[in-house]
Amino acid sequence: MDKENLSVVLHSPGDLRLEHRPIPEPGPNEVLLQMHSVGICGSDVHYWQHGRIGSFEVKKPMVLGHEAAGRVVRVGTEVKHLQPGDRVAIEPGVPREMDEFFKTGNYNLSPTIFFCATPPDDGSLCRYYKHSANFCYKLPDGLTFEEGALIEPLSVGIHACRRAGVTLGSTALICGAGPIGLVCLLVAKAMGASQVVISDLSDERLAMAKELGADFPLQVKMGDMPEELARNVEGQLGGQPHVTIECTGVESSVQTAIYATRPGGVVVLVGLGSEMATVPLLNAAVREVDIRGVFRYRNTWPMAIAMLASKQVNVKPLVTHRFPLEQAVQAFETTRQGLGVKVMLKCDKSDQNP
Amino acid sequence: MDKENLSVVLHSPGDLRLEHRPIPEPGPNEVLLQMHSVGICGSDVHYWQHGRIGSFEVKKPMVLGHEAAGRVVRVGTEVKHLQPGDRVAIEPGVPREMDEFFKTGNYNLSPTIFFCATPPDDGSLCRYYKHSANFCYKLPDGLTFEEGALIEPLSVGIHACRRAGVTLGSTALICGAGPIGLVCLLVAKAMGASQVVISDLSDERLAMAKELGADFPLQVKMGDMPEELARNVEGQLGGQPHVTIECTGVESSVQTAIYATRPGGVVVLVGLGSEMATVPLLNAAVREVDIRGVFRYRNTWPMAIAMLASKQVNVKPLVTHRFPLEQAVQAFETTRQGLGVKVMLKCDKSDQNP
Amino acid sequence: MDKENLSVVLHSPGDLRLEHRPIPEPGPNEVLLQMHSVGICGSDVHYWQHGRIGSFEVKKPMVLGHEAAGRVVRVGTEVKHLQPGDRVAIEPGVPREMDEFFKTGNYNLSPTIFFCATPPDDGSLCRYYKHSANFCYKLPDGLTFEEGALIEPLSVGIHACRRAGVTLGSTALICGAGPIGLVCLLVAKAMGASQVVISDLSDERLAMAKELGADFPLQVKMGDMPEELARNVEGQLGGQPHVTIECTGVESSVQTAIYATRPGGVVVLVGLGSEMATVPLLNAAVREVDIRGVFRYRNTWPMAIAMLASKQVNVKPLVTHRFPLEQAVQAFETTRQGLGVKVMLKCDKSDQNP
Amino acid sequence: MDKENLSVVLHSPGDLRLEHRPIPEPGPNEVLLQMHSVGICGSDVHYWQHGRIGSFEVKKPMVLGHEAAGRVVRVGTEVKHLQPGDRVAIEPGVPREMDEFFKTGNYNLSPTIFFCATPPDDGSLCRYYKHSANFCYKLPDGLTFEEGALIEPLSVGIHACRRAGVTLGSTALICGAGPIGLVCLLVAKAMGASQVVISDLSDERLAMAKELGADFPLQVKMGDMPEELARNVEGQLGGQPHVTIECTGVESSVQTAIYATRPGGVVVLVGLGSEMATVPLLNAAVREVDIRGVFRYRNTWPMAIAMLASKQVNVKPLVTHRFPLEQAVQAFETTRQGLGVKVMLKCDKSDQNP
Repeated sequence: MDKENLSVVLHSPGDLRLEHRPIPEPGPNEVLLQMHSVGICGSDVHYWQHGRIGSFEVKKPMVLGHEAAGRVVRVGTEVKHLQPGDRVAIEPGVPREMDEFFKTGNYNLSPTIFFCATPPDDGSLCRYYKHSANFCYKLPDGLTFEEGALIEPLSVGIHACRRAGVTLGSTALICGAGPIGLVCLLVAKAMGASQVVISDLSDERLAMAKELGADFPLQVKMGDMPEELARNVEGQLGGQPHVTIECTGVESSVQTAIYATRPGGVVVLVGLGSEMATVPLLNAAVREVDIRGVFRYRNTWPMAIAMLASKQVNVKPLVTHRFPLEQAVQAFETTRQGLGVKVMLKCDKSDQNP
Repeated sequence: MDKENLSVVLHSPGDLRLEHRPIPEPGPNEVLLQMHSVGICGSDVHYWQHGRIGSFEVKKPMVLGHEAAGRVVRVGTEVKHLQPGDRVAIEPGVPREMDEFFKTGNYNLSPTIFFCATPPDDGSLCRYYKHSANFCYKLPDGLTFEEGALIEPLSVGIHACRRAGVTLGSTALICGAGPIGLVCLLVAKAMGASQVVISDLSDERLAMAKELGADFPLQVKMGDMPEELARNVEGQLGGQPHVTIECTGVESSVQTAIYATRPGGVVVLVGLGSEMATVPLLNAAVREVDIRGVFRYRNTWPMAIAMLASKQVNVKPLVTHRFPLEQAVQAFETTRQGLGVKVMLKCDKSDQNP
Repeated sequence: MDKENLSVVLHSPGDLRLEHRPIPEPGPNEVLLQMHSVGICGSDVHYWQHGRIGSFEVKKPMVLGHEAAGRVVRVGTEVKHLQPGDRVAIEPGVPREMDEFFKTGNYNLSPTIFFCATPPDDGSLCRYYKHSANFCYKLPDGLTFEEGALIEPLSVGIHACRRAGVTLGSTALICGAGPIGLVCLLVAKAMGASQVVISDLSDERLAMAKELGADFPLQVKMGDMPEELARNVEGQLGGQPHVTIECTGVESSVQTAIYATRPGGVVVLVGLGSEMATVPLLNAAVREVDIRGVFRYRNTWPMAIAMLASKQVNVKPLVTHRFPLEQAVQAFETTRQGLGVKVMLKCDKSDQNP
Repeated sequence: MDKENLSVVLHSPGDLRLEHRPIPEPGPNEVLLQMHSVGICGSDVHYWQHGRIGSFEVKKPMVLGHEAAGRVVRVGTEVKHLQPGDRVAIEPGVPREMDEFFKTGNYNLSPTIFFCATPPDDGSLCRYYKHSANFCYKLPDGLTFEEGALIEPLSVGIHACRRAGVTLGSTALICGAGPIGLVCLLVAKAMGASQVVISDLSDERLAMAKELGADFPLQVKMGDMPEELARNVEGQLGGQPHVTIECTGVESSVQTAIYATRPGGVVVLVGLGSEMATVPLLNAAVREVDIRGVFRYRNTWPMAIAMLASKQVNVKPLVTHRFPLEQAVQAFETTRQGLGVKVMLKCDKSDQNP
């Protein structure tokens, strides 16, 4: 075990530093992890660029990173289900209080939850990181660390599709073919969706979506009329989609999502837009099209591991770039430029494999 | 049985006439009804004043009225469960096609549904009216015709509260204390809601709401800030409400509804506003506050009858005015002026009792 | 179009005849179909052998067959969505009354439902058959008639898996690898089940199950102890299954199903056993393992067609034998002997293709 | 504060002793409570008489009691929401591990849960008792300690009615009018049930049920035929009940429950019978009558407090006997003889009020 703990620390907007931090001591219910693979998320880049997302503001230096997998190196005194050497995927949100949300299984909504790299909580993009053992999930032999790290974005897709009620024979519209749109696509198909339209501005992203199983890639462009796009979707599917998963946060796309969805269907809002949005709420209301948001996810790691282990879903093609931890700034820059799909940072000097 | 069929017919905006129409012949699955009591709904008045609601436009003369109860006078050849003399409440929507919506129990969403007094379908505000026997429900002895007619607005409340998921111990905010807000209040309480805040501009309406069981009447005024109202509601309940039922359609009230509702809760949109609305969708999304509309109702008459028969809900105080059918124009004028709660038209010359 | 209507008619237990019946006239909402492919179901054989199932008794000659697809040759006056030449799959249950079950979307529970080849209602194993147009579903070009006919058993699997709540990452135990067990397997996988144990007495059937995607074939033998089998299943899955779908109706297998299922899980009863069963109800109750039956299916044809059209499920390997309609008795005998999986009767003399 | 901690300790079957135990020290997340009112449950008596329930066996001395309310006298270092002087109701089950059941809100199913007076865990029938602060709920001023203690049995009713899906206009059959049958009755009515049949052998209990709101008390006697009773229930309600809540555990009563329930309805098993039961499972399966057990309850205290505070439910009449803690043996004897409904032990020498 190393003596240093190189960490990727955001000091203020634009000021991302690689610096050494102490190796933390795990508490009784915690484990100390040697980090292996950590993916970069759009939110990491957003904090780097702007220092805040909504009301969450970086006021003191914060370690970034929350899509992570590593190896247990030490376990707290109360930990029973893990031991040193175990390879684990990390669920970054850990509820702090046993409030009504936690008790009813909706712990992601607990207002005091700890969450990696949401200020002021430190993330996991470093050599050594400690985490609640209850939110570390052992990876079966067949899964790589990178698959473990990708469970985090996959969980967004699982929670979104679950909230959407995707089931056998569902038809779906997914707005946006970025990393989140793509995991929604993979999950929707694995839950039995029969036909998926996926829309994006970029034909490169749509090509990737097609490879991953999208039935109808739909290229959109700025200024397209929402109601017209909705009719277009209906035409391709031979009927309005049962569910729409909106992953862009763009106002006109939310409008399209509402117009496009079948009466009695569901629009799930995954993309985050601006505080206020102007949308055809009346149209949604009188057709009983439900509008449901998602806040991260809950209870997704076990089913994600089961899915990946049974080879129902293949997330490996999502990783398009890899950088050693030392080159974190270049890695962030790559993500910022929107190159590829998922950029992975390799934190273990002795093992840079997937 | 009379030979005339005095009917309240809307010819064009503002042009409401009392005229004689032929007594209809019931088809094999229909019944002919001698109408007894028909309530006036805001939508009836809206058609009278404006000739249209959204895309529904009065293009040819149309009989108004859809909150109705009457007595069976003749039955079609295939009708088994009703016979002449039976007193019935009328569900005004009758699906015409056995489409996917009908087959899955969501017949209110069937695009080709027949609906009383939605153009071009004639309503039931007349002496004699025929209707699908399958959508006429026998009234038990203890219920009056007026209670039968009030099942229609009550159904809006049932469907809204059911969509909201009101249950034991729920706290609720109801925006608007008009007839629909009041039935939502009655139903929410009957479903076990522990505390209900109801808001309105009018202190007279709020006084009525208090009499009917509201825990916290909240007087609002034009220009109140939605976020402040939301905090006010939270203060009164000692916590954010689990559900909010928005019955006004006013944009700022929809905003209040979203801000006010507890994470993981539900906002039900009952009031109809303008086509586009500017709302804090992001706030709803990240707190997983679901937004659900209602389109009329489905499968509510049997449970409404059960509720009324078991005296769990008392709708009688809602009727504040009565007019004989011949004075329909005055009755409409009374509703238009917003006097009282529910105006009832008495269609049976020989029996003007409740 | 032929002038004869060769039909497979059961007169009394053991007395199965091929005889000519008149070609029926479709009513206003019906279509006349030239039958193409009709599968033989275990219940058809049961009626042939015993003349009854439970309280349903063959008291007068009855045409058998209810797994069927054909071509529209004539349409009733009110039929809009079909025309002569359309290839359709037939949903054999057609509700007769608009009762509470039908109105709420649970039409399969309507006590007066018409159902092909459930006495006294005639089935569809003949040259020409008329059916409610609303319960005939157009087959897309890519699907064969046999796939259309197989939607009926597939629907049993869909309804069972839907009632079981199978979803992404579910683990499942399926008891019995006959035709129904196999369709449950296919559907569970298509809905995202990660691991499926399937049990049977026959290693031949288990081999078929393995080919169709079962993860763990489990050979059982008469006299196995239910609790031991349950532990065996837990061992193979590394945990108790979330759902168990019991397709045998055998009492000891129902016991195994209960013991095996995870707390908070679901046992679905598909197999029909004897009137009374002795089961560990206490064990189910205190672990909140729900026990749910299925009665046929409802609202499954559209999603089944969507599934088959999108190639998510391949049912073609289920057809192991084919006979021309004229050889119906041999076909029934083949099914009775339990040979293969599904025996298909080819009713169209001019087209005996799949 | 006293120096002694008089406790009701079960040593072995039949050997119930009043003895002094040390006053416990609360841990960081615990509170020390001065007990005020503790109800005696049938399970307490069962342990006293037989030393075991199912696989739970009293192997070392155990304090009894789990229907309890008291006053906070000391708080652990981490406790924020409570302070000395607070009056609280105690939820007796406290999950020990953050397993899949706890994380999904089903903590009552967690196999390692702590539960008062389920061996080997000590109960709360004593002067001073410590408990997890997270499972102590502050009582509003208007509620008595006894109402607080009665939340435990009330929770059984809430969980049962919730699992049954009781809603507006539901009709229900409740088998058994003991304390649990009566709380199910109160809760079913508060959730909107329109008509409730309640059955029992004892006309005294039925009289109590009638006072508490039962619509149809139904006296049964040993040897009644289940199918006949089922028809009787149907006759009284004018239709089969939507839900049946079985609170006796008697095999014939479970049979009645199944026969009586409407197709598509639910039977909830609350009463605990013998390990194996012979029931008409086929009848339940083909009518899609779901059979659901309950294991205690989860997430019921907040809604119970809300219900009681809003006066929707009045549980006070359930308390028919009171004894000071010193007379615990007489109190147990009273419960054993089945006298009255609920026997309450008063643990606070200085305040024996309700």
